[in-house]
Amino acid sequence: MASLLVTGSIGLDTVETPLGKVEDQLGGSATYFSLAGCLLNPIRLVGAVGEDFPDRYRSLLSDRHIDVLGLEVRKGSKTFRWHGRYSPDMNDRTTVNVALNVLGERGPKIPGPFKDSAYVFLANNDPQLQMELLNQLSGPRLVVCDTMDLWINHHRENLLKVLGRVDGVVLNDGEARTLTGEYNLIAAAMAVGKLGPKFVIVKKGEHGSLLYGQGRLFLLPAFPIQKVVDPTGAGDSFAGGFMGYLASVDRSDFAAQAQALVYGTVAASFTVESFSLDALAAADRASLDRRRSDFEMMIGRNLGA
Amino acid sequence: MASLLVTGSIGLDTVETPLGKVEDQLGGSATYFSLAGCLLNPIRLVGAVGEDFPDRYRSLLSDRHIDVLGLEVRKGSKTFRWHGRYSPDMNDRTTVNVALNVLGERGPKIPGPFKDSAYVFLANNDPQLQMELLNQLSGPRLVVCDTMDLWINHHRENLLKVLGRVDGVVLNDGEARTLTGEYNLIAAAMAVGKLGPKFVIVKKGEHGSLLYGQGRLFLLPAFPIQKVVDPTGAGDSFAGGFMGYLASVDRSDFAAQAQALVYGTVAASFTVESFSLDALAAADRASLDRRRSDFEMMIGRNLGA
Repeated sequence: MASLLVTGSIGLDTVETPLGKVEDQLGGSATYFSLAGCLLNPIRLVGAVGEDFPDRYRSLLSDRHIDVLGLEVRKGSKTFRWHGRYSPDMNDRTTVNVALNVLGERGPKIPGPFKDSAYVFLANNDPQLQMELLNQLSGPRLVVCDTMDLWINHHRENLLKVLGRVDGVVLNDGEARTLTGEYNLIAAAMAVGKLGPKFVIVKKGEHGSLLYGQGRLFLLPAFPIQKVVDPTGAGDSFAGGFMGYLASVDRSDFAAQAQALVYGTVAASFTVESFSLDALAAADRASLDRRRSDFEMMIGRNLGA
Repeated sequence: MASLLVTGSIGLDTVETPLGKVEDQLGGSATYFSLAGCLLNPIRLVGAVGEDFPDRYRSLLSDRHIDVLGLEVRKGSKTFRWHGRYSPDMNDRTTVNVALNVLGERGPKIPGPFKDSAYVFLANNDPQLQMELLNQLSGPRLVVCDTMDLWINHHRENLLKVLGRVDGVVLNDGEARTLTGEYNLIAAAMAVGKLGPKFVIVKKGEHGSLLYGQGRLFLLPAFPIQKVVDPTGAGDSFAGGFMGYLASVDRSDFAAQAQALVYGTVAASFTVESFSLDALAAADRASLDRRRSDFEMMIGRNLGA
């Protein structure tokens, strides 16, 4: 076990998929990350919400191995809200409405007791804010960041500075292509690696993920889910499972990263089975490991052929 | 080693991809299957060509472990020709022109010495012809077929009869969805299994493949290729590697099928690296096994984590 910190959004989501609609449910990148990661390792959560943030959601976090010392409830501010709608095949989504609220103000501060965190995940955010948060830490052992098209296209300089400082980066296939101009995802992952990160993880949604680092590739299919209810948060849960495993074994060599990718894949598979965090919040280490074991069978780990 | 027979098309392809164009090059489902399968096991090839079929292509086949006793050169007929053009990302293709020629006449006959074949692959064809060919065999141990949208949409009854007779079926993601009406590929594979085949392989192109059988799933990513030159024949090479391995070990249990899927994946990776059969024809068992070993590393077979 080693300390694991995440900074990112904590919000209230309204989500429409072909299977239904939910309103003002707990969401946000740091939330999904924390609920997944805490199945494997204690989490230090850093993020800001408004004074309208429901107590029951605060409890949902603090009742687990999630330290909410860094959860700032800002007086006079409102919590971040996002409203999204998925396409019939759920491979695309449009933002119907977004209210940055507290996220549009100053960034959160990392509390003193969190500054020595060993493993750090900077969820998708303005790269300038990611850098400010990074500068508040005293020598983390492993820093991984996420990003999105908005920063790649409009804040590229700042993003490149962050990429020059982190150990690893997690991005989806479209973002990897936009960032590098390479259509082929292997070529894109290699090109991202040249921007600084020692390892690069490309998420391909239902098509799995790949890890590139130290000149090596590791490939994983997605965990097969027959009925996807809501893909929201899958990528952040994936990152939570990935980082949670690395912190839990306090290793970050390639073999550990590969095994961490398996945990990330399995954590994400819970998330997409329900709206919001319902299925992920109902999981525990035992159910995570059962599904991991099933998955390892499916990818041939235990196959004597 | 066990006997392995393939029936399917042998043709002359004109292919345009973003990387170039070739004209009247050797192609066809049975050809790609044979060139891949013969790396693992001797092949019995059954198919018809016209008298315009170039001698050098006949030699290219017969110089390998491919028995061309069933390669019928039909007097007065012309060889099948196909002209296709790929989209810029090579994920779609359109048929510019097709001349069935000899394939539009009566089907080929299975020569007497081939009738006792143990392993049989019925490449994509009119299901009525697939059934006629199947009826010429005397008790094969394992029969696998391929199909395509044309037969699924317009000759469904006949196709269902074939599916009721074969042990396994190989189809791509779109075909699995069209055949079953299930969008989710796991659900589609399971639904195909209810139509008769004991195992179902769904090919997802650059996203890999899945095997469903005996209530179990096996998932594989594609072999990572940085520069795809021409995807033509990838699916048939995949089938050739798959069946070639099963025949070579004379086993068809689930573990053997899973290992065979690895060989199919690797065989297909050679095919897409060049136009026509150039890269596949340059491969040998040693280069196939080197790449298989690399691939097994990438999918975590040898990963101690």
